[in-house]
Amino acid sequence: MTHRPTAPVTPRSTEHTALRPLGIDAVTITGGEWARWQRDNAERTIGHEFRWLEADGTVDNLRRLTPGASGSPERRGLLFTDSDLYKALEGVAWELGRQPDPALRDLLDDTTAILAAAQEPDGYLNSWVQAGGAERWAELDRSHEHYCIGHLIQAGIAAARAAGAPALLDVAIRAADAVDADFGDHRRTGVDGHEEIEMALVELYRETGEQRYLRLAGQFLGDRGHEQLRTRHAEPDYYQDGLPVREQTTVVGHAVRAVYLLCGMVDVYLETGERALLDAAVAQWEAMTARKTYITGALGSRFEGEAFGDDHELPPDLGYGETCATIGQVMLSWRLLLVTGEGRYADAMERGLVNLIAASTDLARTGFFYSNPAQRRTSRPASPTDTRPTRADAPGTRPPWFECACCPPNILRTISSLAAYITTATPSGLQVHQFLPARVRVTLAAGDVDLEVVTDYPVSGAVLLRILAAPGGEWELALRIPGWAGSATVAVNGTTDAGTDARGYRVFRRAWAAGDEVRLDLPVEPRLTVAHPAADALRGTVAVERGPVVYALESPDNGELDLGSVVLDADAPLTVVPADLFGRTVPVIDAAGVSATHPDWPATGYATLGSPAAEAGAVEHRVTLRFIPYALWANRGPSTMRVHVPYRKAGRA
Amino acid sequence: MTHRPTAPVTPRSTEHTALRPLGIDAVTITGGEWARWQRDNAERTIGHEFRWLEADGTVDNLRRLTPGASGSPERRGLLFTDSDLYKALEGVAWELGRQPDPALRDLLDDTTAILAAAQEPDGYLNSWVQAGGAERWAELDRSHEHYCIGHLIQAGIAAARAAGAPALLDVAIRAADAVDADFGDHRRTGVDGHEEIEMALVELYRETGEQRYLRLAGQFLGDRGHEQLRTRHAEPDYYQDGLPVREQTTVVGHAVRAVYLLCGMVDVYLETGERALLDAAVAQWEAMTARKTYITGALGSRFEGEAFGDDHELPPDLGYGETCATIGQVMLSWRLLLVTGEGRYADAMERGLVNLIAASTDLARTGFFYSNPAQRRTSRPASPTDTRPTRADAPGTRPPWFECACCPPNILRTISSLAAYITTATPSGLQVHQFLPARVRVTLAAGDVDLEVVTDYPVSGAVLLRILAAPGGEWELALRIPGWAGSATVAVNGTTDAGTDARGYRVFRRAWAAGDEVRLDLPVEPRLTVAHPAADALRGTVAVERGPVVYALESPDNGELDLGSVVLDADAPLTVVPADLFGRTVPVIDAAGVSATHPDWPATGYATLGSPAAEAGAVEHRVTLRFIPYALWANRGPSTMRVHVPYRKAGRA
Repeated sequence: MTHRPTAPVTPRSTEHTALRPLGIDAVTITGGEWARWQRDNAERTIGHEFRWLEADGTVDNLRRLTPGASGSPERRGLLFTDSDLYKALEGVAWELGRQPDPALRDLLDDTTAILAAAQEPDGYLNSWVQAGGAERWAELDRSHEHYCIGHLIQAGIAAARAAGAPALLDVAIRAADAVDADFGDHRRTGVDGHEEIEMALVELYRETGEQRYLRLAGQFLGDRGHEQLRTRHAEPDYYQDGLPVREQTTVVGHAVRAVYLLCGMVDVYLETGERALLDAAVAQWEAMTARKTYITGALGSRFEGEAFGDDHELPPDLGYGETCATIGQVMLSWRLLLVTGEGRYADAMERGLVNLIAASTDLARTGFFYSNPAQRRTSRPASPTDTRPTRADAPGTRPPWFECACCPPNILRTISSLAAYITTATPSGLQVHQFLPARVRVTLAAGDVDLEVVTDYPVSGAVLLRILAAPGGEWELALRIPGWAGSATVAVNGTTDAGTDARGYRVFRRAWAAGDEVRLDLPVEPRLTVAHPAADALRGTVAVERGPVVYALESPDNGELDLGSVVLDADAPLTVVPADLFGRTVPVIDAAGVSATHPDWPATGYATLGSPAAEAGAVEHRVTLRFIPYALWANRGPSTMRVHVPYRKAGRA
Repeated sequence: MTHRPTAPVTPRSTEHTALRPLGIDAVTITGGEWARWQRDNAERTIGHEFRWLEADGTVDNLRRLTPGASGSPERRGLLFTDSDLYKALEGVAWELGRQPDPALRDLLDDTTAILAAAQEPDGYLNSWVQAGGAERWAELDRSHEHYCIGHLIQAGIAAARAAGAPALLDVAIRAADAVDADFGDHRRTGVDGHEEIEMALVELYRETGEQRYLRLAGQFLGDRGHEQLRTRHAEPDYYQDGLPVREQTTVVGHAVRAVYLLCGMVDVYLETGERALLDAAVAQWEAMTARKTYITGALGSRFEGEAFGDDHELPPDLGYGETCATIGQVMLSWRLLLVTGEGRYADAMERGLVNLIAASTDLARTGFFYSNPAQRRTSRPASPTDTRPTRADAPGTRPPWFECACCPPNILRTISSLAAYITTATPSGLQVHQFLPARVRVTLAAGDVDLEVVTDYPVSGAVLLRILAAPGGEWELALRIPGWAGSATVAVNGTTDAGTDARGYRVFRRAWAAGDEVRLDLPVEPRLTVAHPAADALRGTVAVERGPVVYALESPDNGELDLGSVVLDADAPLTVVPADLFGRTVPVIDAAGVSATHPDWPATGYATLGSPAAEAGAVEHRVTLRFIPYALWANRGPSTMRVHVPYRKAGRA
């Protein structure tokens, strides 16, 4: 393959990948909520974020290092603010690839000029170290020097690929070379406390062809897991440094770091074919997915250390669920999808995208959740709109910014590059993994294909693929059948097909012609979902889902009802009602249930099983429970909310 | 009343108290586990703690401030290490009241001399501020200056009352006077980030008769709750500073601070009769007990801020449950018991003492838990025995010390003064609240009473009170009937009595004679206990209790069984088996159940309710589940453990 897609992940080797990515040059999101978000992202979010980056000194931290900088304010903010700017720049670059914008281009160029001027002669760049925070590389456990340069590399690559702006890549290469000069060939050992540079170095190898970047990524993977990182506040496991990466069988420690590390492992596998790396990554992905993932796609059950907990430790109320962790899961699952072609990875991406990531941002796209709980028992005050909270979880609505501002620019770059995550190709065909209104133009071995996806999914389950142009010969069109769907019907020009393949796809091989249509119907009837019986915090509850969408009870839809008192009647039907919410027609779901209070419950909080105190005295009222998509919660001021709801079913108490 | 008991809490006013305390001069614990602990506390714990206080610089931090100190090492440790030393000194003082010990007396006197010499001319004393950490009183939100002086006051009072060592009280009075000079009559406003000084100042008023200490305590109560305290890391609620103390209806924020504040509120009520303070304290105690207390007596469900969570937020796995918080609950409940004479407060004390506080220390009495979970899914490495962890929750066994060493000396002082918390008197009678082998000598209006309590409770439910000497006239003997007991029989000289009174006591008024016996039989059959239906994290589970003792499943008693897989059969009997554990005969409890695993559960972790995936494929084995007292867990190396166990019952799924 000679064409390099305009995409964040572009494997160079073709030996270890089932699918090749299509970039934002090939795929356009043409309508629906994601297109609206991309537009808002360009028109509002980027400007909003750069205003905060300026207001908080994130740009000044680098500007003050440039020759002749006037005033030279003191460096401000956390140690790793550089990375916030780089992620935002990466988002700008992808946005420029989506559509040209002279003002955005100026922003990219001007900022690039600051970075180039701030950079030390050998390419080293880190505003905290250069401000005297520490000796270079001396405090890697917390300095995030590699982490920041990793994000610079990713931004530089995006600028080169999407914006036609190689100057930022030059800055990034010089910074990468400074890392390589000091660490390459084990001239230094040691790894960064926060993984990120591994995947960035592999991508830089892909971009430049320089093998030493790939080698350095592999070195960092090998050097991790030997208990070098241990501080007052954290054990080696926090940094994924407790076991060699090839020996680890589940995700541990800081959730974002863990999934970023796994991205690097899969990336090195993709280029080297080292099976032990892939096997360890798949094992960890499976353990994470089966036992450490919330139904919303949230990852990391612990505030303490922003960390993964034990298997089946999924408290809905105290769960942390950092937005960046789920973004990292999407990045990871995408890589594993490229490697394997297995739909389960696209399923995981969909869970994260339509639930947690969609919930991470308000509908103005200028407010953000850092932590994403699945239950809020007591409403919390609204976030101030003009200041940033210092505690990730505090406010009842989405703050405009954070002291640790990692999530907002991570969301930004994800949205602006989203088109690169929905379809793939092989020489012989095209695979559609996520269903959104889109236009796809791709060159297969058979020739040029032009295709559109028409759908309002997941509002309905109807997805129409229409061939707009096709080459003469046969090629394959594959559609993912989501794991939640159970059954689905697919009709090609009105004729239904055979079954789903082992990877979870319906594959049609034929000589397609312009005007051919593939119609997918997914069963989006609402359903009640239970968690694994060992998920203690979710015992005795159901969640309402519809298609890939997880629903939640939120107080504004439920009058005076105390959401802590509700019990859903699992034998009663779930009713889908089209509702006008936030200017959208949203399918909300009504369920029957009771509000049960226990005014005579013992004042100690505890009662003997089967005793009069435990059995008597419940006061029940029949109620209708209205569920809305979890992604939309907390858009109407402070509220209470819950995803997992206690239930009754005939034959159960 | 002219006699001041040798006790930590000695109300001066008699108008607002139903009961008066008996001190360690009147009450001796004569046998059983608590007497053994008191002996070990004297023989091992005190020495252990002072070695750590020396090793960590806690004593040096003050020694270096004395004139002519040689070497003058740098101050070490957290800002408030002084308080650790003061609590340990308080424990030494109570221990000297229990029995003389020349070496301990030297330790008390020598340390007192250091403090006297370190004190500034006006009495101010704080090693962090005097080391240049901050200006005096300038950073009260975090400096803990009042908090430390509060503990100094309590230690000084203990030394004067129990050890006949007034020199430490002199140091404390001079320090209190420094606070009063700057803050009294609102010369300064502001309150300490950590409550403690309020109750200490009231006790100092009781000890000295100086009204200004009582006034200052009242001032600090009034000045709290006006959102003065707000930092990068914490909102006012963290400091109980979000609402005026008289308006707050539930416990919020840092759990230890919250219960210490309530102690101060009740203490001020006890001396002033200001009803609003008592009402607010009772309301908060009731809210805490009914909705924010673990079955083990643990308080504070959140690691984040060591804080109380929302109502019914009681995660067994991620719960924090700081030992100091439950000690504070015992201190608070004791005060409320004195005010009201209501047995529910003694019930709460018993829950905390025989479960969480007993569990907080290993059986050598030199290892301590800071955080006390009710579930451990994955065993954690044993604590090193020669270093202190920096994260409260990390180890699988009890560490010898902590960087934040608040809990071990708090346990020490509680154990050495424990005899002061088990009985009370009124002019007309004696009340027995906690049942342990004891000797009580008290002078009532009728004359001198000498009584012994003979019991192995809670191993059995049999408690014998024997009158050894009695005055001629009638007086009352009252016994608490614990709330958990439901029924109980009490026989006086073989004749059964009438009922329990509204406060939860059986009261016998008669002319007692030497040799009279009261025999209490409490029903200690094991039982299954459920939590409030709104306690989401405990839904569908039972705990095993026997008398006041909460039991737990721990891996060493359960072979290869995965405790995450067990389901208890609630229809099968619970069998009490005497077992030899740690050189004690312990009634352990066997229950029937199954180990249920779900090898075919969907790899996403979630299944549709009622679907084949959710219903099929469980692999079950009948198992016997062995429960031991929760207090004894983690004494056999790293383990898994759970208090709340999923269950089945006929008629339930």
